[in-house]
Amino acid sequence: MWTVPEETFNSEKQHHKETIFTIGNGYLSTRGAFEEGYPGDSRATFIHGVFDDVPLVFTELANAPDWLPIQVYLNGERFSLASGTVESFERQLDLRTGKLTRTIRWCSPTGDKATLRFERFASLHDEHLLCIRCRVTPEFDGDLEIRASLNGNMDNEGFNHWRWVEQGERDGAYYLHNRTRATGIDVVLAMRLIYTQAAASFEYWDAQNVPTLRVAFAAKDGETISIDKFVGIATSRDTEDPLRMATEHVLAVQSWDSAFEANQQAWEREWERCDIEIEGDEEAQLAIRFNMFQLLIAAPRHDNRVNIGAKTLSGFGYRGHSFWDTEIFMLPLFIYTAPEIARNLLDYRYQRLPGARQKAQGNGFEGAQFPWESADTGEEVTPTWVPHYADRTKLIRIWTGDIEIHISADVAYAAHLYWKVTGDEAWFVEKGAELIFDTAKFWASRAEWDQEFERYEFNDVIGPDEYHDHVDNNFYTNRMAKWNLQTALDVLKWLKEHAPVKADELIQRLELSPERLQTWQDVLTGIYLSVRSNGLIEQFEGYFQRRDVDLASLEPRDISAQVLFGIEGCNETQILKQPDVLMLQYLLRENFTDEQLRVNYDYYTPRTDHTFGSSLGPSIQAIMACEVGKPDDAYEHFIRAVRADLRDVRGNASDGIHGASAGGTWQAVVFGFGGLRVGSQGWSTHPRLPKHWKRLSFRFMHRGQLEVVEITNPVLSYKLQGQHRDRDEFRTRGLEV
Amino acid sequence: MWTVPEETFNSEKQHHKETIFTIGNGYLSTRGAFEEGYPGDSRATFIHGVFDDVPLVFTELANAPDWLPIQVYLNGERFSLASGTVESFERQLDLRTGKLTRTIRWCSPTGDKATLRFERFASLHDEHLLCIRCRVTPEFDGDLEIRASLNGNMDNEGFNHWRWVEQGERDGAYYLHNRTRATGIDVVLAMRLIYTQAAASFEYWDAQNVPTLRVAFAAKDGETISIDKFVGIATSRDTEDPLRMATEHVLAVQSWDSAFEANQQAWEREWERCDIEIEGDEEAQLAIRFNMFQLLIAAPRHDNRVNIGAKTLSGFGYRGHSFWDTEIFMLPLFIYTAPEIARNLLDYRYQRLPGARQKAQGNGFEGAQFPWESADTGEEVTPTWVPHYADRTKLIRIWTGDIEIHISADVAYAAHLYWKVTGDEAWFVEKGAELIFDTAKFWASRAEWDQEFERYEFNDVIGPDEYHDHVDNNFYTNRMAKWNLQTALDVLKWLKEHAPVKADELIQRLELSPERLQTWQDVLTGIYLSVRSNGLIEQFEGYFQRRDVDLASLEPRDISAQVLFGIEGCNETQILKQPDVLMLQYLLRENFTDEQLRVNYDYYTPRTDHTFGSSLGPSIQAIMACEVGKPDDAYEHFIRAVRADLRDVRGNASDGIHGASAGGTWQAVVFGFGGLRVGSQGWSTHPRLPKHWKRLSFRFMHRGQLEVVEITNPVLSYKLQGQHRDRDEFRTRGLEV
Repeated sequence: MWTVPEETFNSEKQHHKETIFTIGNGYLSTRGAFEEGYPGDSRATFIHGVFDDVPLVFTELANAPDWLPIQVYLNGERFSLASGTVESFERQLDLRTGKLTRTIRWCSPTGDKATLRFERFASLHDEHLLCIRCRVTPEFDGDLEIRASLNGNMDNEGFNHWRWVEQGERDGAYYLHNRTRATGIDVVLAMRLIYTQAAASFEYWDAQNVPTLRVAFAAKDGETISIDKFVGIATSRDTEDPLRMATEHVLAVQSWDSAFEANQQAWEREWERCDIEIEGDEEAQLAIRFNMFQLLIAAPRHDNRVNIGAKTLSGFGYRGHSFWDTEIFMLPLFIYTAPEIARNLLDYRYQRLPGARQKAQGNGFEGAQFPWESADTGEEVTPTWVPHYADRTKLIRIWTGDIEIHISADVAYAAHLYWKVTGDEAWFVEKGAELIFDTAKFWASRAEWDQEFERYEFNDVIGPDEYHDHVDNNFYTNRMAKWNLQTALDVLKWLKEHAPVKADELIQRLELSPERLQTWQDVLTGIYLSVRSNGLIEQFEGYFQRRDVDLASLEPRDISAQVLFGIEGCNETQILKQPDVLMLQYLLRENFTDEQLRVNYDYYTPRTDHTFGSSLGPSIQAIMACEVGKPDDAYEHFIRAVRADLRDVRGNASDGIHGASAGGTWQAVVFGFGGLRVGSQGWSTHPRLPKHWKRLSFRFMHRGQLEVVEITNPVLSYKLQGQHRDRDEFRTRGLEV
Repeated sequence: MWTVPEETFNSEKQHHKETIFTIGNGYLSTRGAFEEGYPGDSRATFIHGVFDDVPLVFTELANAPDWLPIQVYLNGERFSLASGTVESFERQLDLRTGKLTRTIRWCSPTGDKATLRFERFASLHDEHLLCIRCRVTPEFDGDLEIRASLNGNMDNEGFNHWRWVEQGERDGAYYLHNRTRATGIDVVLAMRLIYTQAAASFEYWDAQNVPTLRVAFAAKDGETISIDKFVGIATSRDTEDPLRMATEHVLAVQSWDSAFEANQQAWEREWERCDIEIEGDEEAQLAIRFNMFQLLIAAPRHDNRVNIGAKTLSGFGYRGHSFWDTEIFMLPLFIYTAPEIARNLLDYRYQRLPGARQKAQGNGFEGAQFPWESADTGEEVTPTWVPHYADRTKLIRIWTGDIEIHISADVAYAAHLYWKVTGDEAWFVEKGAELIFDTAKFWASRAEWDQEFERYEFNDVIGPDEYHDHVDNNFYTNRMAKWNLQTALDVLKWLKEHAPVKADELIQRLELSPERLQTWQDVLTGIYLSVRSNGLIEQFEGYFQRRDVDLASLEPRDISAQVLFGIEGCNETQILKQPDVLMLQYLLRENFTDEQLRVNYDYYTPRTDHTFGSSLGPSIQAIMACEVGKPDDAYEHFIRAVRADLRDVRGNASDGIHGASAGGTWQAVVFGFGGLRVGSQGWSTHPRLPKHWKRLSFRFMHRGQLEVVEITNPVLSYKLQGQHRDRDEFRTRGLEV
């Protein structure tokens, strides 16, 4: 169960399929558009960190010069799925090796037939190497022509970010050198063809911004002609001489086989540490691997200056900007299976502390207020206004960049989790602690003292549930702020003991005076948290007074509750976009009893727009269903999450992969069904598998060691692999330690 | 004095010069970018009516596929002014024939020298034909290579409007077929090369979206090699089969000489009816021709579905949208010298009455409210918000589309003027009268009755002087509304007499009931017009209470008063962007005595930001200076207007030609210095030439006859040519008749 298949081509679904068939290597990703093009295709390659300015929405990942183009001509007729007759079509993405394969039997308008096979991968072994193989088996004698190009004329839904710089040939590699308009980032692609059949002719067309290699062959019925197109790629973010780097990487290739072999080995190592096996549920098996694959190809392995966007590197949605989606949804996969990637992603936040401090200062606060949307500079890049979807003379004000403040605590939480799970003390002392202190400073300055009720409040915010904006005392926000302040005090205490020099430095630099620490203590003690005696939490102040709607009675729906009731109308109800309170209980699980979980689960679950609300919700909902002992409900939410992109359940997969949902599905399997808990002394599992799952196996790194968990169903036994056999005892105790 | 020269190339001024050296033929215009390109160039071709959607500003003229590209290689070194050594450079625009010529002696980085000469014109004889000649005289023996392309990868300051459709060869013409993204307009360019020297090789590079012809020659020292590139062009606005049309036009070319000869003859006919001769002032002579040329190349000769944008077809400024600039500033040139062009432009407004009616209705009014900015559909396309120039998170609200309502009267005024000057009764009955009635309906419904003062008011408007917005009872607006209502009543009376069937039809269709006509009469009588006893007009209610600033004391300035004081600050002063009241007195001259002119001239002139306010102001100011007997002052304003683009006096000529200013300069010469007045029975002149002008000659059509006016200075005599010698008497009386 490693192959995502497609058996027919449906042009109406082409943008969805382009997203599904995205390939990548953590340096870049390329959507699954066809080599030869198709009318209206949305072809795109996004390279990490290659942002450029754009009106209104500030900045976006620039759609890079296209490395895909290959045109095939049968007796002068250009191959295209939009002409002639498609006699058969098949496409497959091999998740195990990151290779996309497409096979078409095509009859040209004038009746010449051939079978064409395209294979492509972005090498995980050499991030600067991209490979396409094109094999054509003609069913005629005549002319066969293959043209391979680089195309610098790419745009982001109309906006062209590129200026042509130069192009030419160097040592047999044909290159194209472009530069982003505003940010001045250079990108060079260098192309080389390898083929063994004797060519009738070879030409280089030095056409402006589309350097093209044309190779003609004498076609013979039944004789396959094969061309391998290799492309080296480098940017001025990587080196001072990207032309040289791109050329070197493409010239270093020995053969398709050797390049693929190296790629395959790199992927083997990747899956070795993170694969999940599910027996008894083929759909879940394939889908969980697909979700992990999409995160793996977006994960920066060698660059700590970038983060993963909400739509990974797979589409134009959210323009490559990063949200809390990374820290809360995607990061756990990496913290637990690939700590060096998690560290890169956290380094990105650490390096952007100046931007976060500037944002806090600009709003009259102290410390670090992380931007809701973050790109290259670390400043806030949430658009303040976007065009109204129906009336082009109107604009809609987007408030998340102003008041969805919980992200600062989310970043701190992720830094703390990384430390706790990996035990990477050096990183935590050097960078993590500062992230936690500086966000704590922000929270203390952002808290408002209410004289009447004698409490600290956070008013006019947006919580994770974005159906309700401009609310006061969102429980998630308040409780995470409290966690952030308490953790900062705890960490400072620890740091003074374990790294006193660094502690002193930070106390000085961040002005962590005794008075400030006292303020932190006062604020965290006084933060308003509304919990009823039975444990029911009010999502925000006044939530229970909003109109209660029986969501179930509105089924079946094919639109979100927000569309159904309108933005304002929905705001007035208790309907949730995602389970805000449950999310908080998930993150701070140890602070709540099972009964408290159940009370809130029972209240909020029927009020949540699971089907068309946030794609972030279902996986968390699945975990909490497991926690309250409802594995069947859990499976329903889990399967919704894991299908999000494969089945395009929300109808917007064309914009790109739902990265948070993908990260959430890994958590749902491992922490939900698997019930993994990692504590300060070790880890344990609490399996609660869906009825039809026969076996679940997952892997994670625990303090530098690979652990392999095997769970059978019913849970008669589970086998544990790993180095630390001596911890077997508490593993089977099923208790957190 | 027909040649606009450039003697050195300065890359810092390249965008200004691209505007200056725009060529065109009324079907399209092409900025003066180099055939071979230059880093950062702003190359553009705009075709009338080829609009496409764009975010935020709604619609714009799409920068068309580029017909210019020619690359020259000397022994493999690509010619560019950005490399090697430019030994000499010269560029000339011949206003008499619309031909742009550039001659460069260049030494390549490796030391090969050649003289290159490029000539180009867009045929005025055949609007669908574009021609470039490239002549290279090498000073070496070796290889010379010339590549000619069509380039579909064009954008509007980043936004690419085009989707590639197809390309190929047909009957020896190499074509490129593209389509606008949203509006689906097809554009085809078809290219053909003619050269007589024997080529060493000829290749066609069928590169995606950049079809390229490559011709190699054996270069011989001193032997000139010449290639003519012809491009046929057509759109789906012209024909159902633009490919066929583009191909036919390019294949019809016999030779460069014959194509140029036909173009030259067309230009001769053009200048024959409108040329102005000024003796004693070489700068003014060249500049007035330049200003007229820029309007002539933007004037649609065979298309009545388009209008001229504020920046003509010469730049990205205002995105090809049309304003009152056409009717009040540019149209008189055409009404008086090329009535069929004026009729096309007025037809555009007539056809867009449905859009104007929709706008009125949407605002709760009756009749036709013309949009402040107009493009293809006739709906309002003024952007409502534009990004703040300094703070990218902010937007600026643009109010002109909402409340700069005077344009509806301006359109009516132009329709009436066209009729009065040309005597084209058929058009006026068929279309013009309806324009006047329907705008009158708008004004009557827009007027607000003030119970307290018992008067009709137009509140919350912007007048021509845009330094003051949201004002009440702008005199220009109120008085033009009154004119519109009175003229509607007069015209209806006339129509009943002269075209009773049409009158009945319009009375029915536009519901011109006796009650409505009575309302018109009531409103026009009651419209509030604030004039002091000495004739001084208050520009708008409360204007005289605004802060009075001594503008002269702030000289010299290099910024506008609005930048100096800020938008709000300037609004609070009496400083004007342009002479609002004088403009009104100019349009409705016969309603004011000379003394009333003088009083207002003396008051408003020192309060007007002549240097950095509106480019629309100086030419009108010049006319009014003539009217009040100040020809020296008049010349100062005139020369400022006529230099606007040639000398880039406002620093924004790179955005395109100031079309209104260009049209105003013609009016300043003819109505200001020449003092032409056309009345119902004939015409007269009242010359008041600048001291140093020795002779002024201008031409105009009067009721189908070409009139040539000759004025010497001092005005000892003036000679009149024309058919209607019997009207000589009143011509010399110097009185309006």
